[in-house]
Amino acid sequence: MGHSITLLANFLLQQNIHVYLDHACANEQLVAADLLTQCRVLDKDEMGSHCDLVVVLGGDGTLLSVARCLAPYRVPLIGVNQGHLGFLTQVAADEMLNVVSGMLTGKYLPEERILLECQLEREGVEVGRALALNDVVLSRGGIGQMIEFQVMINEEFVYSQRSDGLIVATPTGSTAYALAAGGPILQPTLRALTLVPICPQSMTNRPIAVSDSCEIAIFISKAVDARAHFDGQSYIDIRCGDKLIIRRYRHSLRVLHPTDYQYYKTLRQKLHWGEQLV
Amino acid sequence: MGHSITLLANFLLQQNIHVYLDHACANEQLVAADLLTQCRVLDKDEMGSHCDLVVVLGGDGTLLSVARCLAPYRVPLIGVNQGHLGFLTQVAADEMLNVVSGMLTGKYLPEERILLECQLEREGVEVGRALALNDVVLSRGGIGQMIEFQVMINEEFVYSQRSDGLIVATPTGSTAYALAAGGPILQPTLRALTLVPICPQSMTNRPIAVSDSCEIAIFISKAVDARAHFDGQSYIDIRCGDKLIIRRYRHSLRVLHPTDYQYYKTLRQKLHWGEQLV
Amino acid sequence: MGHSITLLANFLLQQNIHVYLDHACANEQLVAADLLTQCRVLDKDEMGSHCDLVVVLGGDGTLLSVARCLAPYRVPLIGVNQGHLGFLTQVAADEMLNVVSGMLTGKYLPEERILLECQLEREGVEVGRALALNDVVLSRGGIGQMIEFQVMINEEFVYSQRSDGLIVATPTGSTAYALAAGGPILQPTLRALTLVPICPQSMTNRPIAVSDSCEIAIFISKAVDARAHFDGQSYIDIRCGDKLIIRRYRHSLRVLHPTDYQYYKTLRQKLHWGEQLV
Amino acid sequence: MGHSITLLANFLLQQNIHVYLDHACANEQLVAADLLTQCRVLDKDEMGSHCDLVVVLGGDGTLLSVARCLAPYRVPLIGVNQGHLGFLTQVAADEMLNVVSGMLTGKYLPEERILLECQLEREGVEVGRALALNDVVLSRGGIGQMIEFQVMINEEFVYSQRSDGLIVATPTGSTAYALAAGGPILQPTLRALTLVPICPQSMTNRPIAVSDSCEIAIFISKAVDARAHFDGQSYIDIRCGDKLIIRRYRHSLRVLHPTDYQYYKTLRQKLHWGEQLV
Repeated sequence: MGHSITLLANFLLQQNIHVYLDHACANEQLVAADLLTQCRVLDKDEMGSHCDLVVVLGGDGTLLSVARCLAPYRVPLIGVNQGHLGFLTQVAADEMLNVVSGMLTGKYLPEERILLECQLEREGVEVGRALALNDVVLSRGGIGQMIEFQVMINEEFVYSQRSDGLIVATPTGSTAYALAAGGPILQPTLRALTLVPICPQSMTNRPIAVSDSCEIAIFISKAVDARAHFDGQSYIDIRCGDKLIIRRYRHSLRVLHPTDYQYYKTLRQKLHWGEQLV
Repeated sequence: MGHSITLLANFLLQQNIHVYLDHACANEQLVAADLLTQCRVLDKDEMGSHCDLVVVLGGDGTLLSVARCLAPYRVPLIGVNQGHLGFLTQVAADEMLNVVSGMLTGKYLPEERILLECQLEREGVEVGRALALNDVVLSRGGIGQMIEFQVMINEEFVYSQRSDGLIVATPTGSTAYALAAGGPILQPTLRALTLVPICPQSMTNRPIAVSDSCEIAIFISKAVDARAHFDGQSYIDIRCGDKLIIRRYRHSLRVLHPTDYQYYKTLRQKLHWGEQLV
Repeated sequence: MGHSITLLANFLLQQNIHVYLDHACANEQLVAADLLTQCRVLDKDEMGSHCDLVVVLGGDGTLLSVARCLAPYRVPLIGVNQGHLGFLTQVAADEMLNVVSGMLTGKYLPEERILLECQLEREGVEVGRALALNDVVLSRGGIGQMIEFQVMINEEFVYSQRSDGLIVATPTGSTAYALAAGGPILQPTLRALTLVPICPQSMTNRPIAVSDSCEIAIFISKAVDARAHFDGQSYIDIRCGDKLIIRRYRHSLRVLHPTDYQYYKTLRQKLHWGEQLV
Repeated sequence: MGHSITLLANFLLQQNIHVYLDHACANEQLVAADLLTQCRVLDKDEMGSHCDLVVVLGGDGTLLSVARCLAPYRVPLIGVNQGHLGFLTQVAADEMLNVVSGMLTGKYLPEERILLECQLEREGVEVGRALALNDVVLSRGGIGQMIEFQVMINEEFVYSQRSDGLIVATPTGSTAYALAAGGPILQPTLRALTLVPICPQSMTNRPIAVSDSCEIAIFISKAVDARAHFDGQSYIDIRCGDKLIIRRYRHSLRVLHPTDYQYYKTLRQKLHWGEQLV
């Protein structure tokens, strides 16, 4: 990866573009020392307020963590994948310079992906807030006790449920954990969220898809050991009596794809749709 | 049912409202003879061009068949259920006069439901066209041979599939056959369609939800004995080489609900969501 | 395929083994004319009473049809696959002579697979009877009307169901159509059957696995256009009021596998279990 | 509940039967003081070696915990349910004396239910061992990281999997957590276990049913925070590199049911199989 960063930084500096590296890159000495002096080093959190464009080198997981930081600043993202192509990291490492160079001259397909904003209220007071690009997941802990909760959509009561938890996923997240739990695939341009129960005790509790303008509220009525997870990368502890409020975040994330990007092609590859049982 | 029709016709005539009955009602002598002389009798197909409002007495199945006839005329519908409340027939028979009377003075909750328009092309020529409020279902016949087909969404190739068929459902249809086949529930106001494979040979073929502005094309590459069904009430035979094109119909259906209508309440009752395994 | 048959027939004749060909092989001139004179040609149905061992060249589908003919005679089967390895056709065409030669000297892994016997009763009279190695499938026809039926296991009432049909599968069939309908995989040595509903209207109807000593009876209470299918290769028409009785057939099928046969290896390959989403 | 215990103890003492109470009953003063002097009070663990028959008053959960204690002693169990009938607690509280009285004279239907024995090995040394009547569940903890593991059945490699965990359930457990995770229902008399993955990352990982004579070994190759749970009532922490070995326990549990006991009737009631969507 260090090689790719060095290559990219060099290329951008030659175009007289200011280059910012995040501390992690700099600390892990992923960039040649002479280059480092020509770049500015920042915290991931500061990127949004200093950069006009962010290139992520890594997989979809890395992109998720950067996306949550950048979302408030509406800075577009390019994802360069070091291994297999991801859903969001569509630039192959070995075509990086070519593709990024083209993108700088406008050759890209922009895509807007919604994020979720989750707010945790305890006794009427907000005690936590976080963003998620994939999903907010209410989930039982290691003790193994099911959680009991009630779901409201736009203040209309939907159901009470006893289960291992509930996934609220964006279209982006619909091909991640929500899919493993039996949820539908939401086309990225669909303005929708999906609520997918995790091992619900009642067999009639099925995934629901709702408009992304809905406010989803989850009242926790019984939980020994539960958490709300954001993109599976950070979490807040949940207590009995807590209320989670989940809405579409006011900004969406702008991802720049190569011009030959096709969503369904990626999906076919990831899900091995070409392959049949016999 | 005859009793309900007589009651309702009487009530409406007393309000000096013109009453039209469809031939089926008249023929089955569901209305008292003296009343019949004060009403005009029409074909179901003529209702749309003569009426300002249509009241359906029956279940969701009856309403589906009327809805497809009325859709081109944008005439609103009221569904009076003779037995258990339906998803769309929300007026209970024993509250009919009260509720309809209120509705005539504006006391109702209107809801717009999208319909699908399906076009069948054979060798480049349109050989069939139909509407559906619930779903268009491509389905194998009694010989039991799987169908092979390719799906395009907005002219982008999505997948080829070998299965018993494919359901393309509206939000209205998402709680009908599509649910039995493992599809997600789509909130009625979501501008979406869902594609639900029926017993696909590949286990990675999952339901997809797409925007209702998408055009879905299905190319049949292998079919010994297949049909396209519309709301499970009418069908066209399908041959190998045929192409089905499915779009949202240009008009939506306007259904008038009682003022205490709550979608999720109906859903909870229908799916027994209150009940748990213990 | 003709080449393989010629090769195999030649090889067996050289070992002074009597070779019988079925009419289909002979008629399609798959065997060299001079060889044909040294073999005896039979109907598939006669094979069982004349042969000590049957070699099937083809895929799992071909083997299914031969297996149903041979089952009454308890003649062992060897499956040679012309394309991809199948669940039951485990001998690769290009290793055929080697493997079959070894098998003739006892180098094989024998496996017993149960079959189902299905009996159709109408007004108390048996009107049909058939065997199945994979599954007996009660299934709606092309009109698309759901079937209503009641299931009894060992004369105990289990459930009434409204659905597209019901699959009763052996362990062998559990990886075929039953899997597409959401059924469990039954290890081949498990003495069990599985009942898998096809798109049941009630969401709580789940696959059940029962002992293969159970008698399963299905009473058809509503069916416009239904059939019982045997291995998806033959069928009987079903009428309202009919009763299907399904039992394990008194003989099992003996399949000879190569000595390196591993069931789970085949399963992993067929189901792409090595592959993960990211 | 105290009332039921008092009633039952009185009744049994009148028949000159020795009555043992477990400490929990005694401590919670659920029995009248004068009765207590005529009974002997024991730990739950001592019941097996002193009693010829154990009556559990409570629900299926209570019965599970008692069953694990009694299993080594082969003492039969009667389950009296204080609320809704359970799968195993089939005697209704208000018919308790009648039914138990009949059972003492031989009027019962005995049923044998298998248990699982799970052994945890770490670096070749056994570090834990436990019984389960429902299920052994390998499960991720609250951090939310998926577990990676390999499954062997009778020392044959089956699959590697990345998921939230794996359920190994008996027929008894097949209607509990395994059902919520999408597993099949196993008829109680079927000599089988089922392996049900929990939210597996690969969509082709499906439930498998195997003979209860199989030994199942699970090698944990990646686990930040995982546990093995026994009937959801006790657990052991799991580390990366651990090996779980799961077998049928050498004794089965003998449960005595009322003479009108019907397994499928209970199932229909629990799963609301009578009810349909419309």
